[in-house]
Amino acid sequence: MLFHVRMEVSLPHDLDPNRRTELVQAERDRTLELQRMGVWLHLWRVVGHPGSISVFDVPSNDELHAFLSSLPLWEFTTVEVTPLGTHSSDLAAQP
Amino acid sequence: MLFHVRMEVSLPHDLDPNRRTELVQAERDRTLELQRMGVWLHLWRVVGHPGSISVFDVPSNDELHAFLSSLPLWEFTTVEVTPLGTHSSDLAAQP
Amino acid sequence: MLFHVRMEVSLPHDLDPNRRTELVQAERDRTLELQRMGVWLHLWRVVGHPGSISVFDVPSNDELHAFLSSLPLWEFTTVEVTPLGTHSSDLAAQP
Amino acid sequence: MLFHVRMEVSLPHDLDPNRRTELVQAERDRTLELQRMGVWLHLWRVVGHPGSISVFDVPSNDELHAFLSSLPLWEFTTVEVTPLGTHSSDLAAQP
Amino acid sequence: MLFHVRMEVSLPHDLDPNRRTELVQAERDRTLELQRMGVWLHLWRVVGHPGSISVFDVPSNDELHAFLSSLPLWEFTTVEVTPLGTHSSDLAAQP
Amino acid sequence: MLFHVRMEVSLPHDLDPNRRTELVQAERDRTLELQRMGVWLHLWRVVGHPGSISVFDVPSNDELHAFLSSLPLWEFTTVEVTPLGTHSSDLAAQP
Amino acid sequence: MLFHVRMEVSLPHDLDPNRRTELVQAERDRTLELQRMGVWLHLWRVVGHPGSISVFDVPSNDELHAFLSSLPLWEFTTVEVTPLGTHSSDLAAQP
Amino acid sequence: MLFHVRMEVSLPHDLDPNRRTELVQAERDRTLELQRMGVWLHLWRVVGHPGSISVFDVPSNDELHAFLSSLPLWEFTTVEVTPLGTHSSDLAAQP
Amino acid sequence: MLFHVRMEVSLPHDLDPNRRTELVQAERDRTLELQRMGVWLHLWRVVGHPGSISVFDVPSNDELHAFLSSLPLWEFTTVEVTPLGTHSSDLAAQP
Amino acid sequence: MLFHVRMEVSLPHDLDPNRRTELVQAERDRTLELQRMGVWLHLWRVVGHPGSISVFDVPSNDELHAFLSSLPLWEFTTVEVTPLGTHSSDLAAQP
Repeated sequence: MLFHVRMEVSLPHDLDPNRRTELVQAERDRTLELQRMGVWLHLWRVVGHPGSISVFDVPSNDELHAFLSSLPLWEFTTVEVTPLGTHSSDLAAQP
Repeated sequence: MLFHVRMEVSLPHDLDPNRRTELVQAERDRTLELQRMGVWLHLWRVVGHPGSISVFDVPSNDELHAFLSSLPLWEFTTVEVTPLGTHSSDLAAQP
Repeated sequence: MLFHVRMEVSLPHDLDPNRRTELVQAERDRTLELQRMGVWLHLWRVVGHPGSISVFDVPSNDELHAFLSSLPLWEFTTVEVTPLGTHSSDLAAQP
Repeated sequence: MLFHVRMEVSLPHDLDPNRRTELVQAERDRTLELQRMGVWLHLWRVVGHPGSISVFDVPSNDELHAFLSSLPLWEFTTVEVTPLGTHSSDLAAQP
Repeated sequence: MLFHVRMEVSLPHDLDPNRRTELVQAERDRTLELQRMGVWLHLWRVVGHPGSISVFDVPSNDELHAFLSSLPLWEFTTVEVTPLGTHSSDLAAQP
Repeated sequence: MLFHVRMEVSLPHDLDPNRRTELVQAERDRTLELQRMGVWLHLWRVVGHPGSISVFDVPSNDELHAFLSSLPLWEFTTVEVTPLGTHSSDLAAQP
Repeated sequence: MLFHVRMEVSLPHDLDPNRRTELVQAERDRTLELQRMGVWLHLWRVVGHPGSISVFDVPSNDELHAFLSSLPLWEFTTVEVTPLGTHSSDLAAQP
Repeated sequence: MLFHVRMEVSLPHDLDPNRRTELVQAERDRTLELQRMGVWLHLWRVVGHPGSISVFDVPSNDELHAFLSSLPLWEFTTVEVTPLGTHSSDLAAQP
Repeated sequence: MLFHVRMEVSLPHDLDPNRRTELVQAERDRTLELQRMGVWLHLWRVVGHPGSISVFDVPSNDELHAFLSSLPLWEFTTVEVTPLGTHSSDLAAQP
Repeated sequence: MLFHVRMEVSLPHDLDPNRRTELVQAERDRTLELQRMGVWLHLWRVVGHPGSISVFDVPSNDELHAFLSSLPLWEFTTVEVTPLGTHSSDLAAQP
C-alpha cells in the first residue's frame, strides 16, 4: 500500500554542531536501510528545499508511523502523509 | 529530469454529458500514450480526490508544459509543478 | 485500518429539484449500507455545516477510494482523508 | 455531547530532558485516566504527526475546557475543537 | 451553553427576485423568533459584510444544529461555530 | 460603539516564573477593572485555547487601542479587532 | 474616526451589459457624493486590481456600514474594514 | 522602474467560442505591441499554468495600471504586482 | 508616486532593555524626519496591533526601499508594499 | 532552462555579529560569481523585503539545487522555485 510523504527538516541554528553531525549521519543510515528493506520506494530532493518527497510501500498505517518516527531527525521534521491508490489510467494497472 | 505534478480535475456540473464522456475517454487515451512514451513515469490516485499525483521525466521545462497542455481536460485541470532532484540519500544514487 | 474522512457537500443551487431529491435519498441509502457492512465505523454531523466527520475501517487505500467514490453525491463532495494509527496512550491498546 | 479534538504537541528542543520525561509520563497517565472516566471516547494517532485526533464526550463546553487544560502538556499543545452532532444517516440513530 | 456563530450569506446573483424577497423576509422572521425564544442571545452586524456575528445559548450541540439549519437562508449561508466557556476573569463569574 | 476582539496569549516558555505570575495576576486585575468601567462588555473563553473572545463598548477607535495596549500581557498577545454594527434583525433594535 | 477600507469588485461576466453600465455609473456618482460630504477621505486604485484602498472618516461603525452598503455595487463587492487610530509618531499628532 | 507581474487567466467555460478566439488573438497582439514599446520587458510561461510571470518597465504606477487594464483579457485575469528595486549584489549594478 | 505600506513590528522578548529603548526612540525620530521631508504622507495606528498602515510618496521603487530599510527597527519589521494609482472616481482627479 | 527563484533571508537576531558579517560578505561574493558564470540571469530586490526575486538559467534541476545550496546563507534562506517556459506571445520567440 503506497503513501506519498512530504518531509521538511528544520534544525535549530543553535543545535550543538557535534550532535547535528551525528543526527544527520544517523538519518542518512536509517534512510538507506529503509530503502534496502523495500519500504521506502522513492526518495526525491525538492529543488531549493531542505526536504524531500517520498513514496513508501507499507502494509498498514501503523507500520508507516513506526518507520517515520524511527528516523533520527523525526523531532525536527514536519511530515505530511497522503494515501495513494491505483489510478485507473495507470499503464501498469491495465488488463 | 523529474518533475512532481499534482493535478486536480474539476468538470462543470452543467457540461454536456456527451462532451464529458468524450473528454474523459480522450484524457485516458492521452494519459496511456504519454506513459508508453516514457514521459509520464508514475501516476497515482489521491485517495478521496478526483485527481492525481504524478512524476514526469522530461528533457526540459518547455516539453513538460507541452505535454501537460496537450491533455484533453487541460482546461478543467489545476496543475502544481514541483522540480525534483537527486537526493543524496537515495539508494540508487550511491556510488 | 482506520481513516479519518472529512466530507463537505455542495450542491449547485440550480440543480433540478427531482434529481436533488433522488441523489440525497440514494446517498443516504448507500451511507447506511456501508455502515451495515462495517466499513463506515463512525459518522458525525459537523455542527453548522452541510457535511460530516467520519471514521472508515478498510483493508487498503484502494478500497477506501472505491467506497468513497461509490457515494451518489461524490461529484459534489470535497473529501479530505487522514490516515489514523494506534495511539500508544489509547486505553484499548494497553497490554 | 460529542466534540472532535485535534491536538498537536510541540515541545521546545531546549527543554530540560528530565522535565520532558516527567511531563510526557504525566500526560500519558492523565490521558488514560480520562479514558477510564468515559470522557475521552476515542484517541487516534495521526500518521506522521506528533499529535492526535480524539472524540470527547462531555456534559458541557466548560467541562471540556477543564479536561483539556488539565493535561500536563497543555502549555505546549495546540488544540482545535469542533462540536459534533448526530447525523441523520447514522445507523445507530435510525428509529 | 454558549456558542459563537459567524455567518456569511451569499445569494446567487441570478436568484429569482421574488424568491429572494421571500427568503430574506422569512430569514428575518425566524431570526426574531429565535431571539424571542432566548436561544439567539446576541446578533451583531459585521461592518462591511453581508453577514453577522452571534452568540447562541442552547442545551446541546444537536439543538444548535437544528436551530441553524432551520434558517430559511441556510442553503446560502457559510457558518463557523466556536464553543465558548466561562472565562476565569469574567466579572460575572467572580465569587 | 461595539468591537469584537479576539485575543490569543502566547507566553514564551523560558519566561521567568515570578514575572509570569506577576503578569498573569496584573492582567486579571486590569481585565476586571475594565469590566467594572463598562468598557469590556463580554468576555468568553474559547474552548481549548489560551485566549478569549470579547466585546468592547468604547466611544472611539483610539480609546479601544488605549484600553487594549494597557493590558499587562499586551506584548505577548495577538489581537484581532472587528467593528460591529446594529443588525436590522436584532430584536432589541426593533421599533 | 478613521477606517481603512479595502474593496474588491467582481461583476459576473454574464451580467446584462445595460445593467452593468448603469451600476458602474451609479457607483461612480455615489462615490463622488460621499467624497464631497467629507466621509470618504481618500480613494486610491490598487495597481493591477479592479478595486481600491480607501480611508473613511465617520462618527460611528453603524454609519460606516450604512455608507458602504449604500454603494450600488455593494452586492458585488468584497469589503475588508480595519479600524485606524492616531499613531504616536504621527507628525500631525505631536504637541 | 521595474515591476514583477504575475497573471493568471481564467476564461468562463461557457464563453461564446467566437468571442473567446477574438479575445485571445487581441490579447496576443496587445502583448506583442507592449513588448515592442519596451514596456513589457520579460514574459515567461509558468509551467503547468494558464498564466505568466512578467517584468514591466514603466515610469510610474499609473502607467503600469493603464497598460495592464488595456489588455483585452483584463476582465478575466487575476494580477499580482510586486515592486522591484536594484539589488546591491546585482552584477550590473556594481561600480 | 504613492505606495501603501503595512508594517508590523515584532521585537524579541529577550532583547536587551536598553537597546530596545534606544531603538524605539531612534525609530520615532526617523519616522518624524521622513514625515517632515514629505516622503511619509500618512501614518496610522492599526487598532490592536503593534504596527501601522502608511502611505509613502516617493519618486521611485529604489528610493522607497532605501527609506524603509533606513528605519532603525527594519530588522524586526515585516513590511508589505502595495503600489497605489489614481482612481478614476477620486474627487481630486476630476477635470 | 529558466527557473524563477524567490528567496527570503531570515537571520536569527542573536547570531554572533562577526559570523553575520562574514556570512553576508560570502553570500555577496558567491552571488556575484554565479552571475559572472551566466547561471544567475536576473537578480532584483523585492521592495520592503530582506529578500529577492531571481531568474536562473541552468541545464538541469540538480544543478539548480547545487547552486542554491552552495549559497553561504542557504541555512537561513527560504526558497521557492517555479519552472519557467517559453511564452507563445514572447516577442523574442516569434518566428
